[in-house]
Amino acid sequence: MFKDYLASSKQHIEQWLGEVLTSPNREFKPLYESMNYSLMQGGKRIRPILSKAVLEMLHKDPADYKEFLCAMECIHTYSLVHDDLPAMDNDDYRRGNLTNHKVYGEGMAILAGDGLLTYAFQLMTANETATAQEKLDAIQCVATAAGPEGMVGGQAFDMLSEDKHIPLEELKVLHRGKTGALFNASVELGLILGNADTATRTALMEYANCLGLLFQITDDILDVTGTIEELGKTPGSDIRQHKSTYVSLLGLDEAKNQASLVGKQAHDALNSVSYDTSILAALIDYLLERTN
Amino acid sequence: MFKDYLASSKQHIEQWLGEVLTSPNREFKPLYESMNYSLMQGGKRIRPILSKAVLEMLHKDPADYKEFLCAMECIHTYSLVHDDLPAMDNDDYRRGNLTNHKVYGEGMAILAGDGLLTYAFQLMTANETATAQEKLDAIQCVATAAGPEGMVGGQAFDMLSEDKHIPLEELKVLHRGKTGALFNASVELGLILGNADTATRTALMEYANCLGLLFQITDDILDVTGTIEELGKTPGSDIRQHKSTYVSLLGLDEAKNQASLVGKQAHDALNSVSYDTSILAALIDYLLERTN
Repeated sequence: MFKDYLASSKQHIEQWLGEVLTSPNREFKPLYESMNYSLMQGGKRIRPILSKAVLEMLHKDPADYKEFLCAMECIHTYSLVHDDLPAMDNDDYRRGNLTNHKVYGEGMAILAGDGLLTYAFQLMTANETATAQEKLDAIQCVATAAGPEGMVGGQAFDMLSEDKHIPLEELKVLHRGKTGALFNASVELGLILGNADTATRTALMEYANCLGLLFQITDDILDVTGTIEELGKTPGSDIRQHKSTYVSLLGLDEAKNQASLVGKQAHDALNSVSYDTSILAALIDYLLERTN
Repeated sequence: MFKDYLASSKQHIEQWLGEVLTSPNREFKPLYESMNYSLMQGGKRIRPILSKAVLEMLHKDPADYKEFLCAMECIHTYSLVHDDLPAMDNDDYRRGNLTNHKVYGEGMAILAGDGLLTYAFQLMTANETATAQEKLDAIQCVATAAGPEGMVGGQAFDMLSEDKHIPLEELKVLHRGKTGALFNASVELGLILGNADTATRTALMEYANCLGLLFQITDDILDVTGTIEELGKTPGSDIRQHKSTYVSLLGLDEAKNQASLVGKQAHDALNSVSYDTSILAALIDYLLERTN
């Protein structure tokens, strides 16, 4: 049943994503093609699904806020396109398909990423349901999470940490930026647009923190235990790039142990919430048991 | 006297720029260093000066809107950092200094650009003078101008047009995106935040259109007539990259002729404005006579 929820949510989000990006003229078409190539490449759509679940919990219709959900996925996609570039992780495959720069060239991949990032902000301003103040709060939340204090900061620190052993404390700073910030923003977006009360906000931001950390720990585990078929990319990239991970620092067993501890913490955070949190709870177990 | 205005405006803007970007922690410091390197590299600061001049014309204190002026310069700077990359224009020097990737490496330059772009939106949401609706309108204006329908679209089309002869009509589409969109947004930003009436808006958007075009024509002329000392970079890059320009399509004399015609059109647009437009008028002549 939760599987059905995930599948139908993914379908909604991909339908909305398929509608948003159309070129204003013939001359700019190749850029839009490159942007859409990566945007429509599939993936779990976990960030917009998270926002959607929070909105639904707060009795809002996510369709009324589709621009924000699409914006989150545009930003996540841009980060993958740039991350795959030869100057960064230099990956040829993503989700079983050629990466953007392998199809369109490096220059176009850089611009496709720039376009997706900027378009995310344009999209959010165009929503017609939220108030001006809500939209502004949402944009601030997303920009702060995606920018130099958040995801870009984490990416840069990650790049500089290659071939280096870094202590667990620094690894946490790295991941709070690289992965955690956008997970937090996905939840916060739902809280802002759904007008949540303070107690719900506090509890769900604790949940979001745990969820982002859980996602990263299981990501590190899958890089060791996953297969190329499951992952859609070659496993072992962390080891090849000599990256410090939860597995390299703690060992596989202790990393798995940490994952279930953090999962439990996420469940505990939901306990105080007075809304129906069954979907958010199922998301925790889904991340704990995921194979890709 | 106008020279003094330009110099003092540039100084104000660089003081504000110097204040905005500080790292939240030790781990992210190298990213901020790379972002600040390009942001503080000088340049004419013409886009934020344009917004500043419009705000002043409308009797607003530009210091109250410094976040927006800084955002425009962050976005312009990010576009230069990415444009200079080996996969794009592959330039080693910018404003007489090594380009970002020559100092910090390609990966960090990509991230510095991403960081500057995202931070621009964060900055705009943080302003404390404008109303929520004004900020939202300003963000929409800037995102649309900087994104795939505007600057990024023009950049992509420019890249795909290298080594190709394109007709004048397409060159205009290219430049309306690549240069024009951000010039327009600089003026529109001032009009939105300064609460201009409809007549003033219409006249100044015509002025902005002309000014962007004028900037591009004179840019093409300088690439042929400028010296390395004046430009801070090697002239002749358009010819080396086999780019279609106003000079290559029209010849040097006719390009100069077009520049003065467009300059006159910009002056005409200012004639109907009921505010003091002397600074905006001086900006036209400054662009017409510029040597860098």
